[in-house]
Amino acid sequence: MREPIELHLSEVPQLRNPIMVVGLPDSGRVAKIVLDHLIKTLKATKIGYLYSDYLPPRLLMTQEGQVDMMKHEIFYWVNQDASQDLLLYTGDAQPILPEGAFRLSEAVIDLAQKFGVTLVVTVGAFITGKIAEKPSVYGAASEAALVEELKKLNVKIIDSGAVTWMNGLIPGLAKVRRLQGVFLSGETSGFMVDPRAAMIILRVLTKKLGLDLDLSELEKQAKDVEVALKKAAAGEKLGGEQAGKSEYIG
Amino acid sequence: MREPIELHLSEVPQLRNPIMVVGLPDSGRVAKIVLDHLIKTLKATKIGYLYSDYLPPRLLMTQEGQVDMMKHEIFYWVNQDASQDLLLYTGDAQPILPEGAFRLSEAVIDLAQKFGVTLVVTVGAFITGKIAEKPSVYGAASEAALVEELKKLNVKIIDSGAVTWMNGLIPGLAKVRRLQGVFLSGETSGFMVDPRAAMIILRVLTKKLGLDLDLSELEKQAKDVEVALKKAAAGEKLGGEQAGKSEYIG
Amino acid sequence: MREPIELHLSEVPQLRNPIMVVGLPDSGRVAKIVLDHLIKTLKATKIGYLYSDYLPPRLLMTQEGQVDMMKHEIFYWVNQDASQDLLLYTGDAQPILPEGAFRLSEAVIDLAQKFGVTLVVTVGAFITGKIAEKPSVYGAASEAALVEELKKLNVKIIDSGAVTWMNGLIPGLAKVRRLQGVFLSGETSGFMVDPRAAMIILRVLTKKLGLDLDLSELEKQAKDVEVALKKAAAGEKLGGEQAGKSEYIG
Amino acid sequence: MREPIELHLSEVPQLRNPIMVVGLPDSGRVAKIVLDHLIKTLKATKIGYLYSDYLPPRLLMTQEGQVDMMKHEIFYWVNQDASQDLLLYTGDAQPILPEGAFRLSEAVIDLAQKFGVTLVVTVGAFITGKIAEKPSVYGAASEAALVEELKKLNVKIIDSGAVTWMNGLIPGLAKVRRLQGVFLSGETSGFMVDPRAAMIILRVLTKKLGLDLDLSELEKQAKDVEVALKKAAAGEKLGGEQAGKSEYIG
Repeated sequence: MREPIELHLSEVPQLRNPIMVVGLPDSGRVAKIVLDHLIKTLKATKIGYLYSDYLPPRLLMTQEGQVDMMKHEIFYWVNQDASQDLLLYTGDAQPILPEGAFRLSEAVIDLAQKFGVTLVVTVGAFITGKIAEKPSVYGAASEAALVEELKKLNVKIIDSGAVTWMNGLIPGLAKVRRLQGVFLSGETSGFMVDPRAAMIILRVLTKKLGLDLDLSELEKQAKDVEVALKKAAAGEKLGGEQAGKSEYIG
Repeated sequence: MREPIELHLSEVPQLRNPIMVVGLPDSGRVAKIVLDHLIKTLKATKIGYLYSDYLPPRLLMTQEGQVDMMKHEIFYWVNQDASQDLLLYTGDAQPILPEGAFRLSEAVIDLAQKFGVTLVVTVGAFITGKIAEKPSVYGAASEAALVEELKKLNVKIIDSGAVTWMNGLIPGLAKVRRLQGVFLSGETSGFMVDPRAAMIILRVLTKKLGLDLDLSELEKQAKDVEVALKKAAAGEKLGGEQAGKSEYIG
Repeated sequence: MREPIELHLSEVPQLRNPIMVVGLPDSGRVAKIVLDHLIKTLKATKIGYLYSDYLPPRLLMTQEGQVDMMKHEIFYWVNQDASQDLLLYTGDAQPILPEGAFRLSEAVIDLAQKFGVTLVVTVGAFITGKIAEKPSVYGAASEAALVEELKKLNVKIIDSGAVTWMNGLIPGLAKVRRLQGVFLSGETSGFMVDPRAAMIILRVLTKKLGLDLDLSELEKQAKDVEVALKKAAAGEKLGGEQAGKSEYIG
Repeated sequence: MREPIELHLSEVPQLRNPIMVVGLPDSGRVAKIVLDHLIKTLKATKIGYLYSDYLPPRLLMTQEGQVDMMKHEIFYWVNQDASQDLLLYTGDAQPILPEGAFRLSEAVIDLAQKFGVTLVVTVGAFITGKIAEKPSVYGAASEAALVEELKKLNVKIIDSGAVTWMNGLIPGLAKVRRLQGVFLSGETSGFMVDPRAAMIILRVLTKKLGLDLDLSELEKQAKDVEVALKKAAAGEKLGGEQAGKSEYIG
């Protein structure tokens, strides 16, 4: 019988003081946009992937009509300007059952330890149910010093509530395993795919990591969404992007 | 403790370049009709079955008042006209939990490999929520060459969305295990048992497999459904087939 | 770690050609009434019980304020008039998940085999959603000869549909393990606890088993229900039995 | 792979005839208030905690913006006035699936046996759906003598229904393992956090355990709730405590 988590690593590069950034699909696809943008803009190198029975039993269709199993992917990036490299982790879907959330989160922490990571950052959405004029980044961390650092980066501290599924479990398990963990979330209404929430997280993240990242593409997308929303508020129709699409069940 | 999948094979015939066609119950019973029709018309030979704790915990009633556990069944067919035989797989139900979908799909791929299958085709429904004048066959495949082949057979390529459960997992797992996988689905409203959707899949399938299959029975059933639908649209009652039937829970 | 099924048998008596009758809680408590009545009227001897993690995670309150875990119980009865003894199986609840339904049903078949049982009968409810003037017993069986026997006992044969959970799985697993299996169900509306449905099953069962069982108590209860229903139909209130009871969650 | 229950005990003190009191989150947070109050007022000593994959996959936020995994905690208290010490068990959440409820309840009974506990008391809510003028304590126990003792403490005996999840399973498993088990529940509407229900349980518990516990803080909270309810009944608004809070999903 195949293992419920099947990890494939093509190489285990020596990373220098690596920080791991993890983002899995969530409301508004905020976490996914953050990771996809990091991977694309930094031209990060793919070193592995995992298939898992804990992911949804669905076949993905790629744009060319080719199929693929749902998977998680691992990338790294060597920082030329400082001796702090990045390990990046994202995927097509969150696990569907709690057991899967725990097991895959542990697999992520195992990876972090394998690569000598000392700080794991997960990103996500902070849902408010309303569209904010000026959205904020909210965060929490595994220890007081990190909380202070977040405050200095203008991150509002989350002091109640609970972060669910892998984006929540990973910083918690990091703490249990004596790693540092940070959770950063971008304020979003929860009503739509929200590049603006991803953008404000990336601004904090790049400051924290000392990176110089091109955010212009996201800024443009965020502006487009804002314009569309204002038009919608002014009574115009929002889109029709979905028109003519057929719902599909195999 | 009994294994969660209990496979019984009465023989393992030597098949020549076999292609495996898999169809499990789905919306409109499209996949089941395709497989039942193939098995009946080709007079395929049953070589095995499996019971599984992953199938629904229900007792089936046959027409003579005899009972049976839910099961999946395996058939083969020796092609007299060409050196390409068929392995056929269908069953009474899909598994009820994701773990079962993964495990049974792996069991199918194991079978494919045991029989030297190189191409696995799953069939299913493409649900649109409306009744099409001229329904199409939609498909996807594990590699570009197969996608091209599908296009030549007038199959529309699915370029987004996800196929769920076993009909989706099997082509995905096939790809992971270096087999070829194809998914073919017949457009259907999802409102009724749809022999027409099964028929158009079979037309593509027979062309792809170079088979000469009698589809007249299905064509008649498809026509009957069409007539019934037109009458229904014209204001007449659709059936009453269910009248007098009692709902049953043991 | 404790086993998910914990069976305790205080003795393994030598039974003569035993038949096993199984009834677990279902709609209208029909199966439970049948078994409770058999156990009480025959003065059957308790020989064992099982606890299981597959049963609901609830604490039962007995009438004296004492607590008990949910359990299944096993009884036997030595027939003084004929050389065919009985093994009886009932319990407080059905398992809550499919895996539990399969595992506990197998435990029942294991018990049957341990005691040399050749025929397993499960009983249950046949729900119609309306109150029948003259309710019937419906049945199915693992082989044609048994179906014929049921017909002679005026049992209507079920020729479609599915019996769910343990009452359905047990005759199916019996067949797979080469035992005989019969399912008997009493027609009931599904709206209320229905002693009448239990009574008509017992009439068939006693005829089949050649037993002389006192059914007067059940007949009285059945009549009471009928009277109450007629009054209700005539516009009077049905009960208020639940008045003043508090819903309880610990 | 990490164990699904990860217990950490920093010491195993010798306790004298210890009684174990267990309370996990339930309706009205009654059980949690009881345990938190006992731990705080007795200044009980923390000796351990457990993490578990059976608890909800969520990250907790503490007041200072620091994160923590959901956990259960174990405390003890040495009684200076009598030779009967206490073992206390509470936690952030109940398990989410039945298997977890069984496994964690067994872990609690294992702990009880490790410390030589002979009586395990669980506490909880007795939900009535209405606000009682004079709420009562309801109880049940593993044996008749304990039921009698409860009656003398003015506990109303629960003689039907079922207590669910860990608060119910623990006294049941205690009985199966030949320990004594008691369940005590405070009457509550189920509409709000109810310190009054916790207070009346503590009054019974302290009498049963011969403790002299300061309940003034709870009494004040209970009075505050009562006043608020009376005002609410008189037409005033109940609170707005939640105003301005954002719903959060990571």
